[in-house]
Amino acid sequence: MKNISIIGIGLIGSSLARAVKQYDSEILIHVVDSSFQNLEKSKNLSLADSYNTEINKEVEVSEVIFICTPISAYEKIFKDLKKFNLNKSIITDVGSSKLEVIGLAKKFLKDKIFVPGHPIAGTEKSGPENGFKDLFKNKWFISTTSELCDTSHIKIINDFWKNLGSKVETMSPKDHDSIMAITSHIPHLIAYNIVGTASELEDDIKSEVIKFSASGFRDFTRIASSDPIMWRDIMLSNKVEIISLLEKFNNDLLKTLDAIKNNDGKYLLEKFKKTKEIRKKIIEAGLDKN
Amino acid sequence: MKNISIIGIGLIGSSLARAVKQYDSEILIHVVDSSFQNLEKSKNLSLADSYNTEINKEVEVSEVIFICTPISAYEKIFKDLKKFNLNKSIITDVGSSKLEVIGLAKKFLKDKIFVPGHPIAGTEKSGPENGFKDLFKNKWFISTTSELCDTSHIKIINDFWKNLGSKVETMSPKDHDSIMAITSHIPHLIAYNIVGTASELEDDIKSEVIKFSASGFRDFTRIASSDPIMWRDIMLSNKVEIISLLEKFNNDLLKTLDAIKNNDGKYLLEKFKKTKEIRKKIIEAGLDKN
Repeated sequence: MKNISIIGIGLIGSSLARAVKQYDSEILIHVVDSSFQNLEKSKNLSLADSYNTEINKEVEVSEVIFICTPISAYEKIFKDLKKFNLNKSIITDVGSSKLEVIGLAKKFLKDKIFVPGHPIAGTEKSGPENGFKDLFKNKWFISTTSELCDTSHIKIINDFWKNLGSKVETMSPKDHDSIMAITSHIPHLIAYNIVGTASELEDDIKSEVIKFSASGFRDFTRIASSDPIMWRDIMLSNKVEIISLLEKFNNDLLKTLDAIKNNDGKYLLEKFKKTKEIRKKIIEAGLDKN
Repeated sequence: MKNISIIGIGLIGSSLARAVKQYDSEILIHVVDSSFQNLEKSKNLSLADSYNTEINKEVEVSEVIFICTPISAYEKIFKDLKKFNLNKSIITDVGSSKLEVIGLAKKFLKDKIFVPGHPIAGTEKSGPENGFKDLFKNKWFISTTSELCDTSHIKIINDFWKNLGSKVETMSPKDHDSIMAITSHIPHLIAYNIVGTASELEDDIKSEVIKFSASGFRDFTRIASSDPIMWRDIMLSNKVEIISLLEKFNNDLLKTLDAIKNNDGKYLLEKFKKTKEIRKKIIEAGLDKN
């Protein structure tokens, strides 16, 4: 590989640039970002070889074009990419939901190759200054099938992420979206919600909440400080799965609320015991640590 | 101080024993626990100086009697303590809710001294083998006022925890219960609930959920693997605060659900931005790390 493009140089895009340079410093990286600030920061950090605010001819020499922006920017990017001759390029992305993204790609990238991708990695921080080269190491990269690629294209993208140290797996976009709804999207939504509820409390109790936040709440504030635009886009682009699961969660929560109201200790104890099993399996699989 | 009693030698009680011995190895520790297994483990670990299944005369020589059991055991313990002459003893506890505990103490410990206490420390593990001497170091210890003690008694208990390395604060039991509901009880309840929802999914997706749990869900499974009996007791003993907050949380959640259904990106973005403020304050106060 000689040239790649990275569209969107935030936390993920900048970590990708760092990881690629670490893997093979000869690969030329062409960065596109609509934010001058991000471009300037990236240039100061020497993350890439060219920096542009608009997609240009450089994408035609790029063997892989990585879209690393929030999902709401995809439509414009797809329309821009459409104008170029990308016969030798694979377009891929890092977005957290896949079915809607593929629908959009089918609409605007009909004659192009698109491999839907999703590295399961990130932190609560944003921006190119917060990326780091080992972000994807030993983390999962999931590619999904789509009508715009075949297995040989998927293999190229999977191998690319393997070279950066990721474990890879390919699944259907529907499976991806279901699994991510429960492992990532709903946990984030709930964390945003509980911190939101706390932020509406009166000021005197709010300062005490901050002081004593170590007792569980703090972990939620970390999760709920992730990039708001990215998460708005995820919630809306995976809405079918999220709505269905959130309704299930809410029903469960109302049952628990009833149990507390009715002093039903038996119900609570059974519920609290059952959840230990999943934790046990995570620990047994050695997945309880980063 | 020459003698203390620890009733209940689980994670907290055993950590307390270790911290006390570290602070002053001359203090004699008398342990009471209804579980032979816990007593045997504690003896093998040389955590204390005497081990008993029932409260006995040793409490009368103990200057401080620490109750470190789940709250559902308090009534029996209070009734047992009532039988002894504790003129020279302060009874205190480590329970996560205070108003109901004080109500119980007023009923059964009328002529005794009781300082309600709560070290804001713990892990998701249980049992004397999982305690450690530094559990309370740089963590908050909250004492609350009660009709069964005066400021001189509170000072003795506060000083005791200060000697173990804790930061101390005294507040009203009502304030304690409100703050803990939002910083600890509701976060735990929600974590139990989301892991519960996941555990009801079909088996094929459940194994994928475990595999990809690193993306947020894993943190919830850790929180939701804390001791089920302890948490059942906390939920029921602080039910007034918990029900009121949970209803608020649930209303907020339904609004978010509506926003997703209606593609209301503006609502979601504002909600997700607002929560960053609390996180910022926690970081500014240096409270984002253990």
